[in-house]
Amino acid sequence: MRIALDAMGGDHGPKPNVAGAVAALTAAPDLSVVLVGDKAPLDPILAAIPHPADRLEVFHASEVVGMNEKPVDALRKKPDNSIARCWQLLATKKVDGLVSAGNTGAVVGAGVFTRKFLKGIRKPGIATVLPTVTGGKCVILDVGANVHPKPGHLLHYGVMGAVFAKHMLGVDKPRIGLMNVGEEEGKGHDLVQTAFDLFRKSPLSDCFIGNVEGRDVHNGRVDVIVTDGFTGNVILKHAEGQFEFMVKLVGQAVIGQLQAEKELGAKLLAKLVDKFHHSSTGGAPLLGVDGCCIICHGSSDDRAIANALGAAAQEARVKLNEKIVEELAAMPAVADDE
Amino acid sequence: MRIALDAMGGDHGPKPNVAGAVAALTAAPDLSVVLVGDKAPLDPILAAIPHPADRLEVFHASEVVGMNEKPVDALRKKPDNSIARCWQLLATKKVDGLVSAGNTGAVVGAGVFTRKFLKGIRKPGIATVLPTVTGGKCVILDVGANVHPKPGHLLHYGVMGAVFAKHMLGVDKPRIGLMNVGEEEGKGHDLVQTAFDLFRKSPLSDCFIGNVEGRDVHNGRVDVIVTDGFTGNVILKHAEGQFEFMVKLVGQAVIGQLQAEKELGAKLLAKLVDKFHHSSTGGAPLLGVDGCCIICHGSSDDRAIANALGAAAQEARVKLNEKIVEELAAMPAVADDE
Repeated sequence: MRIALDAMGGDHGPKPNVAGAVAALTAAPDLSVVLVGDKAPLDPILAAIPHPADRLEVFHASEVVGMNEKPVDALRKKPDNSIARCWQLLATKKVDGLVSAGNTGAVVGAGVFTRKFLKGIRKPGIATVLPTVTGGKCVILDVGANVHPKPGHLLHYGVMGAVFAKHMLGVDKPRIGLMNVGEEEGKGHDLVQTAFDLFRKSPLSDCFIGNVEGRDVHNGRVDVIVTDGFTGNVILKHAEGQFEFMVKLVGQAVIGQLQAEKELGAKLLAKLVDKFHHSSTGGAPLLGVDGCCIICHGSSDDRAIANALGAAAQEARVKLNEKIVEELAAMPAVADDE
Repeated sequence: MRIALDAMGGDHGPKPNVAGAVAALTAAPDLSVVLVGDKAPLDPILAAIPHPADRLEVFHASEVVGMNEKPVDALRKKPDNSIARCWQLLATKKVDGLVSAGNTGAVVGAGVFTRKFLKGIRKPGIATVLPTVTGGKCVILDVGANVHPKPGHLLHYGVMGAVFAKHMLGVDKPRIGLMNVGEEEGKGHDLVQTAFDLFRKSPLSDCFIGNVEGRDVHNGRVDVIVTDGFTGNVILKHAEGQFEFMVKLVGQAVIGQLQAEKELGAKLLAKLVDKFHHSSTGGAPLLGVDGCCIICHGSSDDRAIANALGAAAQEARVKLNEKIVEELAAMPAVADDE
């Protein structure tokens, strides 16, 4: 398969993107990468790094959306930007997927603009995978594409999250939970109350374990958590912030107070940090798009980019979207205002 | 000052409530506690524990709201329940404040029913205090009293949170942030966009640092975070869940791999857990009530109850509500639909 990589995306410019692409190509012989971006800086970086030239090409795009630019304005003012060009390659079937560590709003916005969605999907959602205490993983979506969802969108997030958990994470029968402020039925605002009823009445009802709470993200009780993009985004960023906070805390108040084994303790803690760092997760897929789109953290290094390209290739291999479309076809029609 | 304690509240029945009350009385000679609950189980517990009888009395209430009962139903079916009786003591000025580890929905619901709110407040909010990497604290509100707030409620939460940070936590000029999905102005849904404008145009604008994100809860960038009760509740419970997850992880993957200093490491980690355990925080104040109301975790032990009683007494000592009313008087009138 062939993946377009936004070579200009992220906080660190093209270098980690190019290095990540080369690493991904080395790991997956069935992968080709199209580096989308400005040839002027890209060509010398490419010339300096050995790479399989038959599987790595540059598609020139003269403009770059800044990480802090307003997405809508930037996409309008810079039609030849690397993010929009990635989407155009996807929309014209020149590639099977795209990966970007660029401005998330612009990646989602340009995708929504192409309207290349899976049948039945009105709003794609960004999924992220967080670790659990049982050694498993919990898929949460949406984490920021859709801050104004309708209950029907949440039902679709449940379908897509469950298919993702099954085929990308190997969970046989994914348990789906609805993020809420309490477990009891009837809790929360209108959105979650209506979504609760939709899940209960849908063919997903067997997998639907009902309302879950913030404490359930990491305790292994649930495989897929469905939520609005506002709450999901706050959870994701809170998880990152609290992880950093606790690592610092443990470093000072525990490891820093050891004597003979201080060095060993620091090494073990660093290993833990490395294991759970976002660069090891393969990015966050934007689910619901006809094609594959993986959004990476702005701070992505080459490992993060390589893992995201690997995840994009794997989505194509397992035919994730075909499976999502099959499951969606079994869902009842949901009115536009639901 | 005199505080009513819901002696029946919490997962562990009256014992930790009585023990916590006695500990609080020992620590604060200016405190009196009214144990509100069923005399039948309370009297023998009290008889078995030495206590200052002149500062500890029992107010009989024959009924108990279960931790998992539907609040509205329970309050209606059980008029002589300990939570409602605490509120009645507050409303009739028999006590200065109340503390409960009981059903949170019932504590808030019974409070809303009494309508003893501060002038200008239409919806009280629950505040919670989380630790930051700089050794400071971050006040977040609302964490669950109001899942359908209007923008004007969020402005009031900013006022109350800032007064709390100043007078209860000793922060000289509290920085207020609005929880959102990005820092840039214009981010997020209608609620936060309108609230952003209200803060900017209010006398609080000097303290208002704008939008903050989930990662800012623990990084020391902000002293007060304002959010809707849905998002706030998810953050609070996620923080607890992730804390437990990481402690377990560090215990296994770091401390468990040490050799000579495994025992020391485990002790240091346990000390850290103890320091940040919710029982050390003094509960979550329901701000906006004319009087003082502190809501404790259902799993509260005697230390948690004692700390909450101490915090309630401290709120009364610093005249927190008088200061909130002064600040509210300086705010512009906000229309009912804002």
